[in-house]
Amino acid sequence: MSLTAVSGRDQANARAVARLTDADPVLVGLRPAIKVVPGMTPTTILTSGAPMPWEQYTGGQRNAVIGGALFEGLARDVEDADAKLRDGRITLGACHDFGCVGSLAGIYTASMPVFVVENRDRGNVAFCNSFEGASRKRLNYGVYDEDVRASLLFLQDVAAPVLAEALEATDGGIPLRPIIRRALGMGDELHSRNAAATLLFTRELLAPLLEVAQRRPKETREVVDFMVGNDYFFLRLSMAASKAAADAARDVDGSSVVTAMTFSCREFAIRVSGLGDEWFRSELPSVEAKLFEGHTEDEIEFMGGESIINETAGLGGFAQAAAFSLQDYQGGSPDEMLANTRKMYEITVAEHPAYRIPALSFRGTPTGIDVTRVVSTGIRPIMDVGVAGRDGGQIGAGLMRAPLGCFELAAEAMEARYGADAVAAPAA
Amino acid sequence: MSLTAVSGRDQANARAVARLTDADPVLVGLRPAIKVVPGMTPTTILTSGAPMPWEQYTGGQRNAVIGGALFEGLARDVEDADAKLRDGRITLGACHDFGCVGSLAGIYTASMPVFVVENRDRGNVAFCNSFEGASRKRLNYGVYDEDVRASLLFLQDVAAPVLAEALEATDGGIPLRPIIRRALGMGDELHSRNAAATLLFTRELLAPLLEVAQRRPKETREVVDFMVGNDYFFLRLSMAASKAAADAARDVDGSSVVTAMTFSCREFAIRVSGLGDEWFRSELPSVEAKLFEGHTEDEIEFMGGESIINETAGLGGFAQAAAFSLQDYQGGSPDEMLANTRKMYEITVAEHPAYRIPALSFRGTPTGIDVTRVVSTGIRPIMDVGVAGRDGGQIGAGLMRAPLGCFELAAEAMEARYGADAVAAPAA
Repeated sequence: MSLTAVSGRDQANARAVARLTDADPVLVGLRPAIKVVPGMTPTTILTSGAPMPWEQYTGGQRNAVIGGALFEGLARDVEDADAKLRDGRITLGACHDFGCVGSLAGIYTASMPVFVVENRDRGNVAFCNSFEGASRKRLNYGVYDEDVRASLLFLQDVAAPVLAEALEATDGGIPLRPIIRRALGMGDELHSRNAAATLLFTRELLAPLLEVAQRRPKETREVVDFMVGNDYFFLRLSMAASKAAADAARDVDGSSVVTAMTFSCREFAIRVSGLGDEWFRSELPSVEAKLFEGHTEDEIEFMGGESIINETAGLGGFAQAAAFSLQDYQGGSPDEMLANTRKMYEITVAEHPAYRIPALSFRGTPTGIDVTRVVSTGIRPIMDVGVAGRDGGQIGAGLMRAPLGCFELAAEAMEARYGADAVAAPAA
Repeated sequence: MSLTAVSGRDQANARAVARLTDADPVLVGLRPAIKVVPGMTPTTILTSGAPMPWEQYTGGQRNAVIGGALFEGLARDVEDADAKLRDGRITLGACHDFGCVGSLAGIYTASMPVFVVENRDRGNVAFCNSFEGASRKRLNYGVYDEDVRASLLFLQDVAAPVLAEALEATDGGIPLRPIIRRALGMGDELHSRNAAATLLFTRELLAPLLEVAQRRPKETREVVDFMVGNDYFFLRLSMAASKAAADAARDVDGSSVVTAMTFSCREFAIRVSGLGDEWFRSELPSVEAKLFEGHTEDEIEFMGGESIINETAGLGGFAQAAAFSLQDYQGGSPDEMLANTRKMYEITVAEHPAYRIPALSFRGTPTGIDVTRVVSTGIRPIMDVGVAGRDGGQIGAGLMRAPLGCFELAAEAMEARYGADAVAAPAA
């Protein structure tokens, strides 16, 4: 009986992870959120993390939500925004519930352009908004002022129309899976390093941009300068690709595979395939950060983050051994990075058939975090993250380790729903 | 006395290798060879390898030289070309003597456009002609027919004018050192793998190409399609960069550092900094090839090659540990690739200050092959090479190991010129 049950879970996990690894995400457009994100309204603001009452948001994430309200013209000033968020005239939502993923605070408002990524394997769609640029001051890092507003308006009024036209000039969009696959062979792990993927993506846009340039030479040049200057441009696209893949793995009865990890300013949370939309929450994760010159540990602030959808899909920290160049940026040695990736095979159910690591003789990346494996081994998922500072802006980068608590809660819920066998320790 | 002499050589080698590693190659133009290559005449054809009498050229390299004569309109047919090459109405030259480096057979004729690379550190200039495209049939692989002619005319009549205009639109050219440095962090070793460097180079040209496209939309689009489709586009530029660096290291009195390695259809040869323009020749190198499906070892043909200037400058086989993705293409495992690179530190005099290997914790690439170290250790320089087939075209890729003979001859010449101490085994 026990054997059968474990085997039932294994089968469910195999089904869930196959949906994850078979995903074929294609960038098909760039549209205002209100036009494409299901459930979005003119007064909706989305932010990172499992949903909480407005009063519980603090610091940079709170500032970012208020900044979003001001940018969208939903409030006169900070007090007005706060009042409207309290009484519901402005509705706060969790990105993940709207097919979106947020970078850091992850603010989406109705007029912001979002990349539309369709999973050709199963037809589901995911969204991500655009990288704001290399400035330390960005809305998603909790800052809103005239410069940030100008950057957001550039994205909306200049970059989005040009890129949208360029996408229309492609043959049905830009497939992201081949770009991610190749970038892993070129030193990216697609979270803290996206240099190759950004170049590969730019290459796909080159010919279409030449067409757009015939009509809009000045704007096209501005957009090219923006993309060329930003090695992180592709990160948002990889996040949308991973969200499209992870969402495809949702709702597989009996599966203990993680389909989302997220954090807000207060807590870390996960969702599990066989447990529906419930969030399992626990304390914030630990971080080993390499801070930029002039910054100290006590400045580190959590203001949310969902780029860890990439780790959920077998990239980022799980693919560290593909990105030795990250040593400079977030610390670690090649041996440590190899060890980190190897460790993740112990808590995942599959090796990605397309995403492979040259330094491991093209072994597939460890994919599909299994709640029961995390609980039985005590190995915490590692994530490559940018570190935000108290006063806004990025102050470093490093490794985050997920807290065990939410995995234990999820395992309890698995047991309550599927019986004790469903959470028996898996075979090694 | 012995100590002083060895130390004299060490000093000379340090001086030579500093010129090599301080080189700052900048792509400044793309012009017909006749306009920029010193010594080039309308009836000159350059080919790879230490110079030999025309009668000694065989197989693909012979066909390539004749193809060059036909392409340039110097002969009516094969017999006419042969007669003119015999009696000197067509002059055959060695690429290296003209500041050029040849890929495979390496044919240069007067009208062919060449990339002009200036070493900003010392003012010397090097040249390389363009990648012919992905077709199996290429002049540099010993094939000349209507298709090859069409490819060469495309380079000359479409690609060169567009690229030359784009280069004029840059701010003084495109520095190649930063591209090579970054590409080593993105899985290239700059010989058998140039995928990242090609993308980085394309990125530099993006904005200038948008300008050119205003005037020549159709041709610009064709050139973009050509570059986008060719991961090897940058190889020729890295060769010119390495030639500019290696030439800067020539003629340092007392130095046993290698400044060129080359091979023709008949022999391998090296030049040494302290020994002027003399070529030290020996038999062809050995190759461990991974052949493309459907090809066999007996098809392998040597038809010349000077892309190994990159190994001379600390790239290619010497930087294999930067390019684990090459496993697929030329065989080997990550461990073997690490071992290969580590081995090269035993025969080189410096670690490149800018070109660094992520998998070796950013250790600089082994740079500056020392004849005395090669002779005392018996370790042969390894080179990553494309393998040509008897009937033309590339049939595989692999590792080549330089023959020891030419190093032994060079050591004898060092001894004859500088005394026995100059070739004493160096300190480990």
